[in-house]
Amino acid sequence: MTTTGTAAANRTDRRKARTRQALLDAAVRLIAEGRSGRVSIQEITDEADIGFGSFYNHFSSKEELFQSASEETLERWAEMIDAACSELDDPAEVFAVSVRTSGRLAWTHPEMAGFITGAGFDLLDATRGLAPRALRDIRAGRAAGRFTVADPEIALSAVLGGLVGLLRLHARQPRRVTEASVDALAEESLRLLGLPAGQARRLAHLPLPAVPDGR
Amino acid sequence: MTTTGTAAANRTDRRKARTRQALLDAAVRLIAEGRSGRVSIQEITDEADIGFGSFYNHFSSKEELFQSASEETLERWAEMIDAACSELDDPAEVFAVSVRTSGRLAWTHPEMAGFITGAGFDLLDATRGLAPRALRDIRAGRAAGRFTVADPEIALSAVLGGLVGLLRLHARQPRRVTEASVDALAEESLRLLGLPAGQARRLAHLPLPAVPDGR
Repeated sequence: MTTTGTAAANRTDRRKARTRQALLDAAVRLIAEGRSGRVSIQEITDEADIGFGSFYNHFSSKEELFQSASEETLERWAEMIDAACSELDDPAEVFAVSVRTSGRLAWTHPEMAGFITGAGFDLLDATRGLAPRALRDIRAGRAAGRFTVADPEIALSAVLGGLVGLLRLHARQPRRVTEASVDALAEESLRLLGLPAGQARRLAHLPLPAVPDGR
Repeated sequence: MTTTGTAAANRTDRRKARTRQALLDAAVRLIAEGRSGRVSIQEITDEADIGFGSFYNHFSSKEELFQSASEETLERWAEMIDAACSELDDPAEVFAVSVRTSGRLAWTHPEMAGFITGAGFDLLDATRGLAPRALRDIRAGRAAGRFTVADPEIALSAVLGGLVGLLRLHARQPRRVTEASVDALAEESLRLLGLPAGQARRLAHLPLPAVPDGR
């Protein structure tokens, strides 16, 4: 292939990647708006601002697009949490940082926050993102005698409920939800898990590790 | 009207009432299955086992049916909680009994439990049912210095998350969720709200008031 030919191929690749990303971004917005269940492919390509025909160059169905968009978003979320917790050993502290990082998505990564509120309880079934990590941490904390919760999965659904409630409230009344609200939720979640009130307060207000951008 | 005519009119009224109830029951099942958003009127009348044409004798649209079904279910739930709490003054005890009564719906009123898991976070916006009552109780407990939670609405979403998680788990693994699981969730929720662990445990294990059938 000539140099000109290679440059043209690279341009085509970049354009294809942009179109794919536009579809994924549109899917995340549609999930956030709770419209993923009943939207047509025409509406998806309109939302992505691409031609209808381009859709099938990238995905074989709506379901495949929404599945890919969910997995990529959950994976970015998981990577952010892992990066924030990489230096930590105590399951209670890992748990606190996970909740505090996730609540801050409301302003650090609004599109991810929208995805989380749109997905709601489906996140409990996801194999990526906060849910499987938090479940692992609750079990570890229980095994270490830090947490006294009866059923880790029920406790996780309460913590996730608090997080989704906070992100929903931020979307509707942005000024009402602050970093202090997020840290308070982490503190209350640690109390739910069985940490004494004083420890819960201290852990929920430690300096947060630097959080990488995640994208 | 002759006596025979009155009897015939009564029969017609009863048949109409049965058809209306069949539609409402079908709507509650469809909400439980997460299908209310995209179901057709034909599918609704099939589910209710009535003729397609009967639908419009009772409701002008799907939306009206689902709205009515939600309101009636939330109202029955609210009445059960009110009846169970009628003798109680302490907001923390009212809160505990509300959660313990609601978690037991998994086996006392499975169709209502299914409705709750299907509705999910939409319950936070409902003007009936557990949500507005629990919010009132959290605010009262906070005003009385019993609860120390930062934002009552975020705390409520955590409690609701725990309840929905428990009901979901029961639907999937019935033997895993027992009365002890429900009482543990009430105890953990009270800790989240700021009650000392000992008080939370005691309140979540008091004898429950007799709960009327609710229907």
